[in-house]
Amino acid sequence: MQFTAKQISGFLNGTIEGDPDVEVAELSKIEEGRPGSLCFLSNPKYENFLYSTQASVVIVSRSFEADQPVKPTLIRVDNPYSAFSLLLEKYNEALKQEHKPGIEEPCFIHPSAKIGQNVFIGAFSYIGEGVIIGDDAKIFTQVYIGAGTQIGEGCIIYPGVKIYHQSQVGRQVVIHSNAVIGSDGFGFAPQADGSYHKIAQIGNVIIEDDVEIGANTTIDRATMGSTIIRSGVKLDNLIQVAHNVEIGANTVVAAQSGISGSSKIGANSVIGGQVGIAGHLTLAKGTQLGAKAGVNSNISEENRQWHGSPAQPLRDWLKASVIFRRLPDIEKQISALEARISNLFQGADK
Amino acid sequence: MQFTAKQISGFLNGTIEGDPDVEVAELSKIEEGRPGSLCFLSNPKYENFLYSTQASVVIVSRSFEADQPVKPTLIRVDNPYSAFSLLLEKYNEALKQEHKPGIEEPCFIHPSAKIGQNVFIGAFSYIGEGVIIGDDAKIFTQVYIGAGTQIGEGCIIYPGVKIYHQSQVGRQVVIHSNAVIGSDGFGFAPQADGSYHKIAQIGNVIIEDDVEIGANTTIDRATMGSTIIRSGVKLDNLIQVAHNVEIGANTVVAAQSGISGSSKIGANSVIGGQVGIAGHLTLAKGTQLGAKAGVNSNISEENRQWHGSPAQPLRDWLKASVIFRRLPDIEKQISALEARISNLFQGADK
Amino acid sequence: MQFTAKQISGFLNGTIEGDPDVEVAELSKIEEGRPGSLCFLSNPKYENFLYSTQASVVIVSRSFEADQPVKPTLIRVDNPYSAFSLLLEKYNEALKQEHKPGIEEPCFIHPSAKIGQNVFIGAFSYIGEGVIIGDDAKIFTQVYIGAGTQIGEGCIIYPGVKIYHQSQVGRQVVIHSNAVIGSDGFGFAPQADGSYHKIAQIGNVIIEDDVEIGANTTIDRATMGSTIIRSGVKLDNLIQVAHNVEIGANTVVAAQSGISGSSKIGANSVIGGQVGIAGHLTLAKGTQLGAKAGVNSNISEENRQWHGSPAQPLRDWLKASVIFRRLPDIEKQISALEARISNLFQGADK
Repeated sequence: MQFTAKQISGFLNGTIEGDPDVEVAELSKIEEGRPGSLCFLSNPKYENFLYSTQASVVIVSRSFEADQPVKPTLIRVDNPYSAFSLLLEKYNEALKQEHKPGIEEPCFIHPSAKIGQNVFIGAFSYIGEGVIIGDDAKIFTQVYIGAGTQIGEGCIIYPGVKIYHQSQVGRQVVIHSNAVIGSDGFGFAPQADGSYHKIAQIGNVIIEDDVEIGANTTIDRATMGSTIIRSGVKLDNLIQVAHNVEIGANTVVAAQSGISGSSKIGANSVIGGQVGIAGHLTLAKGTQLGAKAGVNSNISEENRQWHGSPAQPLRDWLKASVIFRRLPDIEKQISALEARISNLFQGADK
Repeated sequence: MQFTAKQISGFLNGTIEGDPDVEVAELSKIEEGRPGSLCFLSNPKYENFLYSTQASVVIVSRSFEADQPVKPTLIRVDNPYSAFSLLLEKYNEALKQEHKPGIEEPCFIHPSAKIGQNVFIGAFSYIGEGVIIGDDAKIFTQVYIGAGTQIGEGCIIYPGVKIYHQSQVGRQVVIHSNAVIGSDGFGFAPQADGSYHKIAQIGNVIIEDDVEIGANTTIDRATMGSTIIRSGVKLDNLIQVAHNVEIGANTVVAAQSGISGSSKIGANSVIGGQVGIAGHLTLAKGTQLGAKAGVNSNISEENRQWHGSPAQPLRDWLKASVIFRRLPDIEKQISALEARISNLFQGADK
Repeated sequence: MQFTAKQISGFLNGTIEGDPDVEVAELSKIEEGRPGSLCFLSNPKYENFLYSTQASVVIVSRSFEADQPVKPTLIRVDNPYSAFSLLLEKYNEALKQEHKPGIEEPCFIHPSAKIGQNVFIGAFSYIGEGVIIGDDAKIFTQVYIGAGTQIGEGCIIYPGVKIYHQSQVGRQVVIHSNAVIGSDGFGFAPQADGSYHKIAQIGNVIIEDDVEIGANTTIDRATMGSTIIRSGVKLDNLIQVAHNVEIGANTVVAAQSGISGSSKIGANSVIGGQVGIAGHLTLAKGTQLGAKAGVNSNISEENRQWHGSPAQPLRDWLKASVIFRRLPDIEKQISALEARISNLFQGADK
């Protein structure tokens, strides 16, 4: 994609200073500006880059006053940051167009599958019996969609994603490569001889609208009933979501965290990376868990921050952590006390 | 699958109360009963659901006495829970039938590969040179099986699993989507210039009978010799098993745990989620590790519980954890003691 | 591959004792020697195995003197270990030959893609628009390479790897199965209504030469600019590398560790397993992080060891950890002190 400064300025209702015909093909940070790239200056502390950047076009505020000569063409707008964000979005939409609707050959589509309007399906993908794919969905290459699964309108399923049978995926859901949805929950009944007997996992996974799921994340199907990811949830990479878990709407989970079976996470929670949540727990709305936190009991109070393992309220954890580092000194203090007392009262306290 | 209450009651040697011709197509929890679903009542604390459930059929004990009118058809049996479990198994077997034996096109099967009787191989799967696949195995779509690998009878290999060359997989093994078996162990020799030289990984992976492996779990091949997963082991999702590890029979490992190179885990162990086990260790039979435990030394005593990182015996860890939370108070106690002594004996102790 | 003792001895400039025509087809540890296998004896403490091993050929030092009769054929060399290492390398190279150059059918190669000399591409792989693949590269089956991505000379991309658009992969890079390169960074802007708005991720991933990446590891593309893996970096399995991270040359990272957005790791660092590094941090060259460490602040001093979470210098952490285990005793000491004082000075300190 190639645009002139004039085209972009027009799109942003901006005013141009410098060559209106200079062309840009990419967006970049101002400190990484290359010829042909467009960037923006919003934070004054980056102003110096403006005078050294190789970028062809820079978006600045209408009120900005340069105190040195400027090489790149400037586009003046009311709010450089939101103007740039707007371009990002357009750029992204354009990328999405990359794959025109259509079905690449070879791919496996069961005759009973229902494919919506304006859908893209990449080569080597496998669409099982009775699958329903909504309009405008993009199923990239090497994807598996099991029997009876439904994919909503406008979903983007990246290469290598595997979605087991009977799953329900809402609208505008994005699932990144090699994520696995609907694999068996981890349920085994111990036998008298020490072996384990598999418990049939006959539930499914329900993913509501506007969810994004990261690469190599795994979401197990329910033993019975459903594992549920509510609308607007964002999951990072390499996350484990066990059978019968429910994650409340607009909750965000960072990479490599794990949620054990049947636990329920309240809406609008924020869960850091490498967090572990034990099974059969309920976490209140707006719970915030620091990275590496380990939660092994219910959290009933809303909108609180927890850290550590076992998790404590943030303030308590901070205090205890500081003292933990001072344990060697504390031990010395105690020895000193014991010595003082003994010295003082030889024999007094028998 | 659609059955009448009468058919199911006959199968369970039960007795019917209500409409024997009502049909059910799915199993559900009693609190999630829908028209057309069958559930069971075993735990008395769920009895209220019996009077409100929309389920069409409920399995109850012969001795159960309803104290309110009941809508669904009842099937009375000696033990509702085991009766329901029996149905779960049958249901599961039926699901397995989903894929009739046969080889879908296109897939890549090396002419030298030996495929057993009654095997299913999904489209876009890749069966390498000299591979042997046992009778009744199901290889789903998009699977890779490297040269010289053997897959035992009745295995189920889900979509996207990658099994490198020379691996040996026993009978009735289940491997979930995008798991990787036999990738190179992580072995590099540091060089004088700070770079690393790859050490050839020429061993393999041996997986014995009745093992289940979760989605996106990785098991590395041995540097030399074999990485061994003994019979009956159950691995959850996103687990790392490094080169030359051996996991004893009937050991269970929860999600996101990692076992470093050359460590040996005793049989019948139970390892929680996000546990880390250092390299070259030996853990005794029946070792139980709490979630997030970090093990950095051998465990010689059998059947003990360990928690924390570095791991401690359960009781010690519980005590220390409680006191950890009280560190701020403890520090205050010490200051108070120091103050008391100083106040009491002004100058006495020089 | 089958060789005689004579062939191997000639290759190693060794001298033979015993049958020069005995054939070997595999390399093994001396304690696991089987008929047809070749092993080496370097460490004297393994000498006993020499007298019991079933191996057909054993490499020993010229100076070695057996004190019992020896069954296998011996090959005497100056340095048994390096001789064996040399064979390992040759063996490994031979394995690499396994796949002759060529393109298996069916696979998807966009007409605009440029494929180098002597390249192997496995069936069901997908090579996108404008992709460039260097000479001697091996792309196994079921791989995805997105539009505009470049793969350097001699790369080995194992089955199921997914590399998104616009990525740059250097020379001699090895990527193991189901790793994901270039998936979207985890960037969402919170909205007034509690939902999140996706921030377009328009950067890319740059992987320099001689990097190895483990199975199921994920490396996100940059929001803008590049996520950069410098030359010689070795990443184990199931690692998370977030958007805009930079990992310095010849750094090694063990399995299941995670590096958050925009953090920079110095060259020649060694990072243990299950480590977590927070976002926007800078770690000095040669930083060493123990397993499960949690780093939440910059590390400016080079070549230091850190442990624990929050991470501390190794010595401090060891001290504090020991005392942590002794907290119950410490508490008793304090109570004892309080008791002594109170007993001694009844009423004195009011």
